[in-house]
Amino acid sequence: MEDPWEKSVTYSLNTIFLLFSAYLVFVMQIGFAMLCAGSVRAKNAVNIMLTNVVDAVVGSISFYLFGFAFAFGSGSNSNPFIGTNLFALSGFVYPVVVHWLWSSDGWLSIGSSNLFLGSGAIDFAGSGVVHMVGGVAGFWGSLILGPRVGRFDAFGKPVPFRGHNASLVVLGTFLLWFGWFGFNPGSFEKILVSYPDTSDEGNWTSTGRTAVVTTLAGSTAGLITLFGRRLIIGHWDAIDVCNGLLGGFVAITSGCSVVEPWAAIICGFVSAWVLIGLNIMALKLNYDDPLEAAQLHAGCGAWGLIFTGLFAKEKFVIQVCDRGVTGVSRPFGLLLGGGWALIGAQIVELLAILVWVSITMGPMFYVLHKLKLLRISKDVELTGLDISTHGGAAYTHHDDDFPSSFADFIRLRDNES
Amino acid sequence: MEDPWEKSVTYSLNTIFLLFSAYLVFVMQIGFAMLCAGSVRAKNAVNIMLTNVVDAVVGSISFYLFGFAFAFGSGSNSNPFIGTNLFALSGFVYPVVVHWLWSSDGWLSIGSSNLFLGSGAIDFAGSGVVHMVGGVAGFWGSLILGPRVGRFDAFGKPVPFRGHNASLVVLGTFLLWFGWFGFNPGSFEKILVSYPDTSDEGNWTSTGRTAVVTTLAGSTAGLITLFGRRLIIGHWDAIDVCNGLLGGFVAITSGCSVVEPWAAIICGFVSAWVLIGLNIMALKLNYDDPLEAAQLHAGCGAWGLIFTGLFAKEKFVIQVCDRGVTGVSRPFGLLLGGGWALIGAQIVELLAILVWVSITMGPMFYVLHKLKLLRISKDVELTGLDISTHGGAAYTHHDDDFPSSFADFIRLRDNES
Amino acid sequence: MEDPWEKSVTYSLNTIFLLFSAYLVFVMQIGFAMLCAGSVRAKNAVNIMLTNVVDAVVGSISFYLFGFAFAFGSGSNSNPFIGTNLFALSGFVYPVVVHWLWSSDGWLSIGSSNLFLGSGAIDFAGSGVVHMVGGVAGFWGSLILGPRVGRFDAFGKPVPFRGHNASLVVLGTFLLWFGWFGFNPGSFEKILVSYPDTSDEGNWTSTGRTAVVTTLAGSTAGLITLFGRRLIIGHWDAIDVCNGLLGGFVAITSGCSVVEPWAAIICGFVSAWVLIGLNIMALKLNYDDPLEAAQLHAGCGAWGLIFTGLFAKEKFVIQVCDRGVTGVSRPFGLLLGGGWALIGAQIVELLAILVWVSITMGPMFYVLHKLKLLRISKDVELTGLDISTHGGAAYTHHDDDFPSSFADFIRLRDNES
Repeated sequence: MEDPWEKSVTYSLNTIFLLFSAYLVFVMQIGFAMLCAGSVRAKNAVNIMLTNVVDAVVGSISFYLFGFAFAFGSGSNSNPFIGTNLFALSGFVYPVVVHWLWSSDGWLSIGSSNLFLGSGAIDFAGSGVVHMVGGVAGFWGSLILGPRVGRFDAFGKPVPFRGHNASLVVLGTFLLWFGWFGFNPGSFEKILVSYPDTSDEGNWTSTGRTAVVTTLAGSTAGLITLFGRRLIIGHWDAIDVCNGLLGGFVAITSGCSVVEPWAAIICGFVSAWVLIGLNIMALKLNYDDPLEAAQLHAGCGAWGLIFTGLFAKEKFVIQVCDRGVTGVSRPFGLLLGGGWALIGAQIVELLAILVWVSITMGPMFYVLHKLKLLRISKDVELTGLDISTHGGAAYTHHDDDFPSSFADFIRLRDNES
Repeated sequence: MEDPWEKSVTYSLNTIFLLFSAYLVFVMQIGFAMLCAGSVRAKNAVNIMLTNVVDAVVGSISFYLFGFAFAFGSGSNSNPFIGTNLFALSGFVYPVVVHWLWSSDGWLSIGSSNLFLGSGAIDFAGSGVVHMVGGVAGFWGSLILGPRVGRFDAFGKPVPFRGHNASLVVLGTFLLWFGWFGFNPGSFEKILVSYPDTSDEGNWTSTGRTAVVTTLAGSTAGLITLFGRRLIIGHWDAIDVCNGLLGGFVAITSGCSVVEPWAAIICGFVSAWVLIGLNIMALKLNYDDPLEAAQLHAGCGAWGLIFTGLFAKEKFVIQVCDRGVTGVSRPFGLLLGGGWALIGAQIVELLAILVWVSITMGPMFYVLHKLKLLRISKDVELTGLDISTHGGAAYTHHDDDFPSSFADFIRLRDNES
Repeated sequence: MEDPWEKSVTYSLNTIFLLFSAYLVFVMQIGFAMLCAGSVRAKNAVNIMLTNVVDAVVGSISFYLFGFAFAFGSGSNSNPFIGTNLFALSGFVYPVVVHWLWSSDGWLSIGSSNLFLGSGAIDFAGSGVVHMVGGVAGFWGSLILGPRVGRFDAFGKPVPFRGHNASLVVLGTFLLWFGWFGFNPGSFEKILVSYPDTSDEGNWTSTGRTAVVTTLAGSTAGLITLFGRRLIIGHWDAIDVCNGLLGGFVAITSGCSVVEPWAAIICGFVSAWVLIGLNIMALKLNYDDPLEAAQLHAGCGAWGLIFTGLFAKEKFVIQVCDRGVTGVSRPFGLLLGGGWALIGAQIVELLAILVWVSITMGPMFYVLHKLKLLRISKDVELTGLDISTHGGAAYTHHDDDFPSSFADFIRLRDNES
């Protein structure tokens, strides 16, 4: 690209695409904050929102301080699904996985000069790198913490702990959906890239298809969860649909750039049952997490890795991995005739993440637990964190300053005149 | 366009424009969900939000399953203003109208080789195709359903049923406004299109003007509604302003690409009075719809069609219909000297939609009503749908698990130790 | 640029950049409405949201009516930080300041042919023009209005008046953050501009850097506010972090395009202490404003002007002021060795805005106060504006129509059958 004007156009176009995609990824922070706030009890709403705000600001600063090493890919470095509480350690655990998958010399990378199983693992926007890492860490945290006080009765039967605000849950879910349009299609980083051998196509085609594929997986998962849960619990549940949607998005995040839209529907269908099944199991085992992080992010994320190994299409794999260079042959989805190499690499990624995060985060949570640093006291838990730690409740609908009697009213009115 | 690099630039640019516009259209789903939730009573909030979420997921899937037949135009296929409840039938009623107006062989289309009245009807982003179709269907539904229990007293006098959350109504309205920037300017589909005869202009000029025109119509309508309602009801009402704004947006959606900004102010001014007038009439006739769908979408949508017939500017009509091809002559706005052909076609569109939707949706609602499938029982209506059908209320501010007495507190605290 | 195709590409690209940036700026209206609503007491929530909606619609219309004189720069004409209440006067006070700084013949402009102090003042996206103007006006308004009834007790000790909804405050803050990505980077107006002497860079580089710089300043300010306030008040406070974040954004708005990312961290650090200090002073002086407009917008805005005079980098100043024309020499940041001219011009801007807004708005507020037009009656204030002026409260969670007894339930159910 010698022509300076052509260069200016290319840089301008790709900058617009990257910047606005990144802005949408930021919306995921808003969505996650609202989802979290709505999913917990009112007495802890300020606490969890503060966690989200701090996550956003610390993520932004550390992203700058610790380098733009992975350019846009590291946009996920400030991703909303790894809580601030884990920040100190995740500053180590997470980058290691990023390096494995998304660095050109990572042992599982599709860009490596020495491809694992001759294939490498495809984790385009991070079902494994982002979601499984967060979900497995969350699993150990919730397991070692134990359930909230009163969540299960003396017989181990669950007591419903409803989130305090369904409107916030729906708002948050929709904002996450909106943000995912930045996350998955935006992970192409550049839109003005044409594939030499397929002169009628380029990243502009792939980004559009990725947006459609992402939408289909989430939507199918939401719909199946709606009816599936209706069959099981006997009533419609909007919160279930929201979690189902998110489960579908988590699962498709790995393969969104390399599968056909029809495959996304299969992805979403299975995601719904993975989530439903894991939630039933969690209740049986008295495992409690108001945000279902392990079920959603680890469970659906793991399914996403396997799904990609089953349904990745040869043409798309070559486009994404080799930018359409001619004469290349790549392992692709097992069910499309692409052999065992890709699915093998995907399963190895799944297991590697599971083991790596477990052996690092599990012991850490255990030590924190033993040092009694992990859990607030029962008094504080019953009262709620907002009043005990944050100076007051999230909502003040009955104004303390509102005159409680006519005498008060007169007193206040006459006080200053 | 032989040059492959020029082609890549064109496709990349137009893909960015289309994708990000489509993302904004998606925000309308969020806005509509919040608007609906805030406008109903708290006891039905989960129910209506579930409807909105299901509308989004079913819309996404059916859009894929039933074809990308109309490319972006059909983005409106998943538009937020046609409720899921109507989905089965609207899957038939709505596409027929789309075909009439937006398909090149539709009898009312501006792209037809055999132009109706030598003009065709201009419904750029769908005041008629989208909003009137939804509004007329909603009219028959609400009419046959009848008002909510207790909405009018024994003398037919209305009893105020306030929506439960004004913050959500304002949030939803603003998000719809934001999304309309994707809907109206985005309906150009391509931004890199130059008009051969007007070498200084192209779609980049038109999209910007469309955004301004849209904003002006909504803003004027909101402002006029504020003062108009103040005169009539004696106090300021934020919800009225919100509905006024949306009425202005609905009306300008038809002509947004073919009118001057000053005309948009007239459009908004009249929209406000159409909405105010129809709302007064609805109260008089004991017609009840918490979302004012008929008044807003059918009423202001119908006015939008007429407005376009009065104020469409010749130059812009040629740009939109013929991409600036030379020597073309097109009927344009009656008040600008463009003759009766365009306004005639606009009125025919209005009547055709009114009749078509009425003869299809009216009988269907009547049959559902007779089969007692349309309305929930009075017991359920009084209790609220959330508790009866969705397993619980939207809001849980007084936590059931919060100890209601000191004894409870002690019991809970000691329970697990 | 003779080639019509090259021209089309340039216009299309820059239109996309400008339009979508403007859409994001619109999101600031949403954010500000939610922030305001959440920050006031429930009894005034509808009132302040109505003010925000009216601000948006009046801003849109007046922007059109009074000319697109400043193109995108005037997008700030409808900026959310200058309340509608001030509209009539700000329609005069504000444009004068805009002219001083952003018009090529303004006496403080960086584009003037007769540069003030040989430098002109750099106020890229308006820490002074937008925020100080609004903040100083707000200062005089709140000072002359006096504190809310009951805000300080008989001994001058503050009584906590918590905003009614922390979720709305967090939502609003995040939406403002999102919108700031349109405001600051979008103020370049064009993205396809290359600098002749630095052929490897152009506005595409600067816009990206501006987004990073903006994020870093806000994030640092939020984080420092969190810990600073924790030290001072003894508990964590999410609302403080939100205001801290916004303070950092306000401060960086002036210099965002001309400083390095590391300097943004210093900007945010100081912003936090400016805000904390001014808030302590306000409490001491019994100065009351639920939105902290003076502290946030005037205080942090003033710091932003000074900061730019200290840290502006020569290369970036030349890029922004002269589009990279060769052989130019410009005063730049004092601490980077750029001399006293720039910091001098920045301080003159600060003082000029302070004096100009004070001598225009101060007397106006005083006259309104004397005419008893400024403040609502104590009865209305105690009852809340929503019930007294807007026909009802923002929230109706205990439905009036909900049967309060079983007898009511039976009566309602049987009423219409």
